[in-house]
Amino acid sequence: MPPYSVLERRFARLDAVSDAAGILGWDCQTLMPDGAADGRADQLAVLRGLAHELLTSAETADALAAAEQSAGDLDHWQRANLAEMRRLHAHAAAVPGDLVEASSRAASKAEMVWREARAEADFGKLLPHLSEVLRLQREIGAVKGAALGLGPYDALLDAYDPGMRRATIDPLFAQLRARLPGLVARARARQAREPAPLPLHGPFPVEGQRRVGLALMRALGFDFTRGRLDVSLHPFCGGATDDVRITTRYDEADFGRALMGVLHETGHALYEQGRPAAWRHQPVGKARGMSLHESQSLIVEMQACRTRAFFEFLAPLVREAFGREGAAWTAENLHRAHTRVEPGFIRVDADEATYPAHILLRYDLESAMIASDLAVADLPGAFDDGMRDLLGLTVPDDRLGCLQDIHWPGGAWGYFPTYTLGAMAAAQMFRSAQAAEPGILAGVAAGDFSRLRGWLRAHVHAKGSLVGTDALMAQATGAPLGTEAFLAHLEARYAGA
Amino acid sequence: MPPYSVLERRFARLDAVSDAAGILGWDCQTLMPDGAADGRADQLAVLRGLAHELLTSAETADALAAAEQSAGDLDHWQRANLAEMRRLHAHAAAVPGDLVEASSRAASKAEMVWREARAEADFGKLLPHLSEVLRLQREIGAVKGAALGLGPYDALLDAYDPGMRRATIDPLFAQLRARLPGLVARARARQAREPAPLPLHGPFPVEGQRRVGLALMRALGFDFTRGRLDVSLHPFCGGATDDVRITTRYDEADFGRALMGVLHETGHALYEQGRPAAWRHQPVGKARGMSLHESQSLIVEMQACRTRAFFEFLAPLVREAFGREGAAWTAENLHRAHTRVEPGFIRVDADEATYPAHILLRYDLESAMIASDLAVADLPGAFDDGMRDLLGLTVPDDRLGCLQDIHWPGGAWGYFPTYTLGAMAAAQMFRSAQAAEPGILAGVAAGDFSRLRGWLRAHVHAKGSLVGTDALMAQATGAPLGTEAFLAHLEARYAGA
Repeated sequence: MPPYSVLERRFARLDAVSDAAGILGWDCQTLMPDGAADGRADQLAVLRGLAHELLTSAETADALAAAEQSAGDLDHWQRANLAEMRRLHAHAAAVPGDLVEASSRAASKAEMVWREARAEADFGKLLPHLSEVLRLQREIGAVKGAALGLGPYDALLDAYDPGMRRATIDPLFAQLRARLPGLVARARARQAREPAPLPLHGPFPVEGQRRVGLALMRALGFDFTRGRLDVSLHPFCGGATDDVRITTRYDEADFGRALMGVLHETGHALYEQGRPAAWRHQPVGKARGMSLHESQSLIVEMQACRTRAFFEFLAPLVREAFGREGAAWTAENLHRAHTRVEPGFIRVDADEATYPAHILLRYDLESAMIASDLAVADLPGAFDDGMRDLLGLTVPDDRLGCLQDIHWPGGAWGYFPTYTLGAMAAAQMFRSAQAAEPGILAGVAAGDFSRLRGWLRAHVHAKGSLVGTDALMAQATGAPLGTEAFLAHLEARYAGA
Repeated sequence: MPPYSVLERRFARLDAVSDAAGILGWDCQTLMPDGAADGRADQLAVLRGLAHELLTSAETADALAAAEQSAGDLDHWQRANLAEMRRLHAHAAAVPGDLVEASSRAASKAEMVWREARAEADFGKLLPHLSEVLRLQREIGAVKGAALGLGPYDALLDAYDPGMRRATIDPLFAQLRARLPGLVARARARQAREPAPLPLHGPFPVEGQRRVGLALMRALGFDFTRGRLDVSLHPFCGGATDDVRITTRYDEADFGRALMGVLHETGHALYEQGRPAAWRHQPVGKARGMSLHESQSLIVEMQACRTRAFFEFLAPLVREAFGREGAAWTAENLHRAHTRVEPGFIRVDADEATYPAHILLRYDLESAMIASDLAVADLPGAFDDGMRDLLGLTVPDDRLGCLQDIHWPGGAWGYFPTYTLGAMAAAQMFRSAQAAEPGILAGVAAGDFSRLRGWLRAHVHAKGSLVGTDALMAQATGAPLGTEAFLAHLEARYAGA
């Protein structure tokens, strides 16, 4: 068998292990009984360890070298696939198997403790576990950085967003830091001058919320033969290839939270379901990175579905689902209620104008912790200081502060910046998509997302990892990733006259 | 590290892979979207392949040989664990990895086709897939048999029930074949003389059935921190260590089917949850085999819970759950309704007196197919002939005939006899348990299963695989596995004066 074919077969096996872990991870967040946590952590650690062994074995290294020698025989997609294999191998080969398993195990344990610590607002309970996770992340960053010629934080970031660097992020985030406080102040001033939205009185039964959520997923083009909608405390899009599972959580007092969450996760799911079918089990057929992934969730949730046009479609659906009528239930009022700007403690509840502040803070803090410039024990104080500086809020307890997110205990260091990079990419893409397809918003108002979906399929989903994020953005929007479209979008929606 | 410790670590990793596959298998039967079937089949095949590589690697073989050299240093449980490791290694090493993956993949595929073929009563649709599964099972039987010094059928059977042989089964099944037809005839004659049970009119809402099922599980001692109850087309007990998941299916016209199914699967689950905690991830901590496993489901469902005593406990629960009262809802009538003897087409719906006939038939047919004495294409005819001979029934279509069970397409050849061997073991154990603990039935009538559970914990569950089935039966009941207690039980319950 030619070495490239050996590699395709081997990476398909790896993908099966990774898909298996995806389903086990989904189960862990949705259905698993508490007493199974230790066993599940073991299962995931062992699967990751086995995948690591497969990826870093001498056979893989030899086949990579041999295939690269004869890369001239490969077509365009195969060459890109081989390059992705090399990238994955370089990341993995840098990290010893013991470290992979130890890190997976420490993160599973810390996640479990985090659930209790957050409920009890007890940072001290999490501290030893978080310190251990950080210690192992620092070690991974150091060994990967040495192999890839990157600083430790860039080495971690590169695993989530290939090619992204602190040197790219810093000036972009500096622009946001300079512009957003004024924008938020203007948005709030405009808001104060306008009539407040009429209140939407609950309760909103879970079954009705679920029905509307499913209707929105269908309208967006989610393929239910290859995916599901379920419930978890922390909504996510997970599962496996051809088995894309999104979750939401229901609050009977507020239907908007679950529905907007469904829209967001459906955006992620469309990317997963739209990856190039022939390559879906190969590295080149994977999503390009977490910044682009987030752009796909936000282009649905924030760009398309916080428009007045979307609420024309939604209003009759929710009126019917909850048996309501009257002035509060017009598209206009629903739109107003779902486009408020209001600094708050919780990142996942933040509006799109204040959300970047949460990310700027976390990016600074995790960079500093990876660089050993901030001790984990000092995290709560630093977090609270940052919230005061960036959003003018005084954090009352760590549940509303540094304990709110799963990322750090879960071992996802270098992930946070992708949220705001994704928001920027979404704004830039939506502008280009609308220019190319002027009927997009008229379609959204009628519940027809086919034009938007078609643009995304062609320019993002079906590309997989054929090109880098930079090239993809340039091909799709004519420019590299920047802040201009995002800031212009926020100005127009919230601070315009 | 001493070789025995190397082995413990390696088998714990293997167990994690096997537990992962257990959850993926559960998910496949309960929640998985249809379009994910091919991917899931790949995942399971790859996990089985990786487990097979771990188990049969040179390092494992070397460590086994070295540990056996110094087995004198090991304690009782460790020595038994080492012997189990050797047994598992011998089974696995006999089969090439390619054959393991090919068999897993063929079975996954055939299972999927079987679902359609059964729904359409179209055996021809399944035929090529079933032939391929059988071809691979024959190959596995041949290579294992050569390595273990067994015939091919015994080699397959040994994987489900270690130590069990055709030479043991044949005389036992001959006794059943000789005695059961007369017993069934006498039971039906007695039934005809007695008043028919009053009908139990539905509908019985699923939510009420589920509530009663959960109450029964709690009464039996199911640990919900380490397990779940869900729904699947074909009820089973699966999942993983510390995550034991049972399923049932609900019929709004007949609450008994779901409840009796829950009792049955809870019996399996108690065995899994009661395995020796310190050894639960090691071979010696596993259940002894599928015959004993079935004995644990049947001792709950058939021995304890088809008694008049049990219906004293159940009657008020179902009256309350379904809001019923009157003569049909007395313990006496419910008991009568749930202890009918009636030959029927479907094995899983059969009463305990006619159930063995379904097994005798399948045992004969699968033995003949493995021995190439029966072609798969001739299976429908042979199945229908057997139903006429054994139960006097004419099979109207293959949905009610040879397409009814998942075992053959699913690759579980050599499994069927364990159902009836388990029924025999259950009767023998229940007699001994009652002799040792005279209060068992009084407890059952009050919903207190602690005496029965205590006896099972001590004599079966907590033993894991410390001793063989023969020794376990002899220690628990004073005799090897036989038909006498089972036949006496059926006589007393159904055919007695």
